[in-house]
Amino acid sequence: MNPIARRWVPAFLLLSVLAGAIFAQKQKVIVDQDARGPASTDTQSILMFAQSPDVEVLGITIVAGDQWVPEETAHTLRALEIAGRTDIPVVRGAESPLVNSKEESEAWEAQFGALNFKGAWTLRTYHPPDVIPEMPEGAPATKAIDERADDFIIRMLHKYPGEVTVWAGGPLTNIALAIRKDPQVPALAKQLVLMGSGFNSAIGGIQRMNGRREFNWWFDPEAVRIVMSAPWKKITITPVDISVKTRLSDEIQAQITKVDTPLTRYLKQFSRPSFMWDEIAVAAMLDPTIITDQKELYVNIDIEHGPSYGQTIFFDKDTKAPAWWKPATVQFDLDAPKFYQMYVRLMTLPTSAGKGPAH
Amino acid sequence: MNPIARRWVPAFLLLSVLAGAIFAQKQKVIVDQDARGPASTDTQSILMFAQSPDVEVLGITIVAGDQWVPEETAHTLRALEIAGRTDIPVVRGAESPLVNSKEESEAWEAQFGALNFKGAWTLRTYHPPDVIPEMPEGAPATKAIDERADDFIIRMLHKYPGEVTVWAGGPLTNIALAIRKDPQVPALAKQLVLMGSGFNSAIGGIQRMNGRREFNWWFDPEAVRIVMSAPWKKITITPVDISVKTRLSDEIQAQITKVDTPLTRYLKQFSRPSFMWDEIAVAAMLDPTIITDQKELYVNIDIEHGPSYGQTIFFDKDTKAPAWWKPATVQFDLDAPKFYQMYVRLMTLPTSAGKGPAH
Amino acid sequence: MNPIARRWVPAFLLLSVLAGAIFAQKQKVIVDQDARGPASTDTQSILMFAQSPDVEVLGITIVAGDQWVPEETAHTLRALEIAGRTDIPVVRGAESPLVNSKEESEAWEAQFGALNFKGAWTLRTYHPPDVIPEMPEGAPATKAIDERADDFIIRMLHKYPGEVTVWAGGPLTNIALAIRKDPQVPALAKQLVLMGSGFNSAIGGIQRMNGRREFNWWFDPEAVRIVMSAPWKKITITPVDISVKTRLSDEIQAQITKVDTPLTRYLKQFSRPSFMWDEIAVAAMLDPTIITDQKELYVNIDIEHGPSYGQTIFFDKDTKAPAWWKPATVQFDLDAPKFYQMYVRLMTLPTSAGKGPAH
Amino acid sequence: MNPIARRWVPAFLLLSVLAGAIFAQKQKVIVDQDARGPASTDTQSILMFAQSPDVEVLGITIVAGDQWVPEETAHTLRALEIAGRTDIPVVRGAESPLVNSKEESEAWEAQFGALNFKGAWTLRTYHPPDVIPEMPEGAPATKAIDERADDFIIRMLHKYPGEVTVWAGGPLTNIALAIRKDPQVPALAKQLVLMGSGFNSAIGGIQRMNGRREFNWWFDPEAVRIVMSAPWKKITITPVDISVKTRLSDEIQAQITKVDTPLTRYLKQFSRPSFMWDEIAVAAMLDPTIITDQKELYVNIDIEHGPSYGQTIFFDKDTKAPAWWKPATVQFDLDAPKFYQMYVRLMTLPTSAGKGPAH
Repeated sequence: MNPIARRWVPAFLLLSVLAGAIFAQKQKVIVDQDARGPASTDTQSILMFAQSPDVEVLGITIVAGDQWVPEETAHTLRALEIAGRTDIPVVRGAESPLVNSKEESEAWEAQFGALNFKGAWTLRTYHPPDVIPEMPEGAPATKAIDERADDFIIRMLHKYPGEVTVWAGGPLTNIALAIRKDPQVPALAKQLVLMGSGFNSAIGGIQRMNGRREFNWWFDPEAVRIVMSAPWKKITITPVDISVKTRLSDEIQAQITKVDTPLTRYLKQFSRPSFMWDEIAVAAMLDPTIITDQKELYVNIDIEHGPSYGQTIFFDKDTKAPAWWKPATVQFDLDAPKFYQMYVRLMTLPTSAGKGPAH
Repeated sequence: MNPIARRWVPAFLLLSVLAGAIFAQKQKVIVDQDARGPASTDTQSILMFAQSPDVEVLGITIVAGDQWVPEETAHTLRALEIAGRTDIPVVRGAESPLVNSKEESEAWEAQFGALNFKGAWTLRTYHPPDVIPEMPEGAPATKAIDERADDFIIRMLHKYPGEVTVWAGGPLTNIALAIRKDPQVPALAKQLVLMGSGFNSAIGGIQRMNGRREFNWWFDPEAVRIVMSAPWKKITITPVDISVKTRLSDEIQAQITKVDTPLTRYLKQFSRPSFMWDEIAVAAMLDPTIITDQKELYVNIDIEHGPSYGQTIFFDKDTKAPAWWKPATVQFDLDAPKFYQMYVRLMTLPTSAGKGPAH
Repeated sequence: MNPIARRWVPAFLLLSVLAGAIFAQKQKVIVDQDARGPASTDTQSILMFAQSPDVEVLGITIVAGDQWVPEETAHTLRALEIAGRTDIPVVRGAESPLVNSKEESEAWEAQFGALNFKGAWTLRTYHPPDVIPEMPEGAPATKAIDERADDFIIRMLHKYPGEVTVWAGGPLTNIALAIRKDPQVPALAKQLVLMGSGFNSAIGGIQRMNGRREFNWWFDPEAVRIVMSAPWKKITITPVDISVKTRLSDEIQAQITKVDTPLTRYLKQFSRPSFMWDEIAVAAMLDPTIITDQKELYVNIDIEHGPSYGQTIFFDKDTKAPAWWKPATVQFDLDAPKFYQMYVRLMTLPTSAGKGPAH
Repeated sequence: MNPIARRWVPAFLLLSVLAGAIFAQKQKVIVDQDARGPASTDTQSILMFAQSPDVEVLGITIVAGDQWVPEETAHTLRALEIAGRTDIPVVRGAESPLVNSKEESEAWEAQFGALNFKGAWTLRTYHPPDVIPEMPEGAPATKAIDERADDFIIRMLHKYPGEVTVWAGGPLTNIALAIRKDPQVPALAKQLVLMGSGFNSAIGGIQRMNGRREFNWWFDPEAVRIVMSAPWKKITITPVDISVKTRLSDEIQAQITKVDTPLTRYLKQFSRPSFMWDEIAVAAMLDPTIITDQKELYVNIDIEHGPSYGQTIFFDKDTKAPAWWKPATVQFDLDAPKFYQMYVRLMTLPTSAGKGPAH
């Protein structure tokens, strides 16, 4: 070892230690998604996590919802390839809700009016679960791991007790299955963060003016009942009401495409103007100051199979409530410019940036 | 006949004819109310009708809701005495909802959270149905007529087929009973106008943030199902969503009390700042230009006895709907100054003005 | 007064007093029926009452159910003409259930399986409510009185407080309307006796093996909820379970037709072998010893609009129950020969026998 | 090899081949049970399988129901030790139903009447899930395998596609979880055989006279909905209606204890007179001729959370039905002596007999 090297050794060690410390501060998260692709709000929320140096994504668990599991898995794998994050495991999950079904939803519509979006069940875009339509972004070379979503969730929570955020951007089937398979799941998690539910929004719902019939929750109401009644340490909800205050506009796209990376090229090609449903739930987890109004509410879901099946039910925290209701923090307003700024910053980082040390 | 008389005869005849013509143009209305008194939104809406020269009030039918029928009847009779309109019949109606009950509502609250208002069932102000607490405005000298509300409604609609507006400011029990007793009721009416229901308002409901649980409709959900599924020629709805855009403020009260009549003295003494729930439904009937935003919606109510019992259900008119759904015109915004102006004008007219010829 | 007359006076007075005493002992009954005709279980139960010297039938109130009100009214009038009892008022009542409807029942069947009988709504025999198909027994010359069933029930109960049995052989719509119009109805009645509901019978229901879906109660479930939750002094129920233990056989018909009266000729021509649903409820009221097994149960109905809509719900009297449940005496077995004997005896009495003094 | 040995070789080979052939004919079964112990209907049905030479028990999967999973597991392990069948894997499963809960059941009882049995939730015998009360039959030395019930079911069905009978004697939570985790489960199984549901029995239910509220199905209604709506090749149901036609009497016990084995001693000490709920479902699978009356019915469960939550719903096979209903073979009567004979025979076989070649 020459003198120069010698002088550097302690500095290198110091850096390593620091890096380790910083790396240790990365938030561990399991990202549960009904990952429509390419480049939907689902995929983009995954990419925000993948790009963030502040997050350690333990895995992405796929659940049926916007699309079927096989195609969602393929789109997720491909997006991670483009983002240079093939190190993140992709895990297949539940292919259908617990109780709700395409057949039941059609009988419901015949009585209570048609729904304008039903995810994988939407008639005008329907194909069987095992068919993967041609992928315009290219088929993935990588593969999902050989484990099921509920098992993956259980394994990770036991491996890192108290450290893992369970983040959900789709129907809650995988998480409900994990809870019923292992009742320790909620207590082992650090917290639950989710996009879902709706309160008093006249847009954003799947039956037009009715924001309280929100897709993620409607698709598997019984799963919501299980998950929202479980003893989590903390629940944070991004509902329709805040989603509709955002818009992934052409201006934001323009800012992203100023930087040229495989990821920005992918977004330029496939991303479309839309409410930023799931992206808010990522951003607010990474930087809670993005949220400017939130309320503590008891929140759950109607599982009577009548006209209100799948609608959010709720009341405020001062109401006397039986024990099975759990309070949640529900986001109602945000600092939109700050949010857009974070979105642009993450999407324009060099791909693989998420692998690096935490900020 | 002396010469002077002779000269007057044609003039008198002319006036009679004119008066008849004008009188014939008065809108005939049955006012169905859960008439809390003194001087609530219920009573004030009655007084607007009583004061309006453009309306012929065939009768006021009383229904349990905000209070019990005996006290509501007494407050209504007294208000009409003060307004000099003892010519308007007051008619007692249903003393309880069809199916809903105080007992059921308490079992419901034990599961789904307490309600902040339950009308006559509210525990902190509860008294038995047949007790009339002391009336600060004085007890009435007049009496209700010896007929029941549903019979009165049926009789009037047959007497004036196609001419009568059924206007409802309370639970719909009386009207539902009338329909089930005589299926011709809806077709015989000119239209149904009502205050009730809620859509996407975060205030104004009886479970705080949930405007979709509106008192009038919640109190007797099965009656709403009956009434809203019946073949009316036209339905107009004033929901919570528009009510909460108004306020009976001290400034408005001050304008009223500038004029001194028995009625303005009554209002000065008993009226309190509040949303103007029912007054909008009167004003918009008298002058539809007060409404600046309205939508054609299919509207009904959830009668499953679960967490959404008594909540408004709805979808927009472009949705394919089974035949039992009826489209209604739902008011969402108003020209508030114009509305306040009408309210002040009617309340400051000389009492008995409503008896005179129509404008 | 001559000596002979003098001798007869006391005897005449005695007879008068006796007759009065006997007449006073006649049970007053309002017979509420969905009176399918000619000669169904509905009509036969009416005729049993009409023929019985022990009953004073205050009136027969008609309700939609097995058929529509206009045709049921016509068949009832005609049957009373044949039985020489045109002194009994026939009163038209509710033309449809409170909430249930043909449309809702069809949506239900599409989800939960077809029903084998739906009364007036049965597709294979359907005609509009105001059509009266040709009457094989001849059209009546008499007319229904000009009053509605609920008003008639209310008027009679106030006229004879505590004396009147309300006997119901059809859907409970009329009685529910009467209760909601005048809450004193249940307390003013002597008792409620009804044919309806089902418990554990594998025959007799309207969905084949499911006796718990009994027609009368299914047709208007919300009316049952109202009636069965009201404060009657006593409720006696003849359910499907006991009805299916009887049969109006050819042998019984043969016994009846041995006697020749207008009534036996009518029965010979139109009566058909069948369970004796409603006849038991009459017989057991006239002679309770016909019943050999009965239980005290809490009985009500499911009004959730799901798969169990309209099914009987119940539990035994030792179960701790909330106040809205009312105990009822439910008949489960009978002395069938004694019952048939009473049926034959009443039907073979001279017509107009019911007008005479009580036994 | 000496001449004698040589002569025996072919015979031995032949026997081996025959034994293999016979062994191959053993029915493969997964036994899913809420295994209350010691010596309940749950345990006895397990022991019938364990003793039968005609069955290859792949494993016993435990589900919460009559008791909690830890104590049920311990009782099952101990019973298998006593029967000399520690070769059969015992697998822990779901510790609670999907949606139903002790709290919800208590709110239900407050409205609809107390239930006389609620398994692990029964108040008078309640203890926390992780407590195992002292075991009078002795604690087991063996252990459950390190796999969860749903995974075990999935693994076995893939290992022996088309060969395995899924036999369920408790709530259907484990099987529902397996189906939702792997949608191939129903199609991979040979058949589903279960004890559960009730039709028109006035005894045997958990609310006394109401046999349609059967414990296994009531405990997890949503699991029943999932399992009974899945595409099994064949479903056979042993309902309450047939169970109550049997009785494990002292006479039968006496026949068993005539033979002295560790198993008969265990039964003598712990078995109690009872309906033979689950034993019938085993016997009828081993010898279908035991059943003398069975019907093809569409069978499912009410999952509205009202008064009929958890009750069996059904209609006969000739009824037009939507696709989500599945026909099942439902047993209604049996050759009881033949059944008792089989029970006695199996229980008095030498322990470990089940390991031997099939008959």
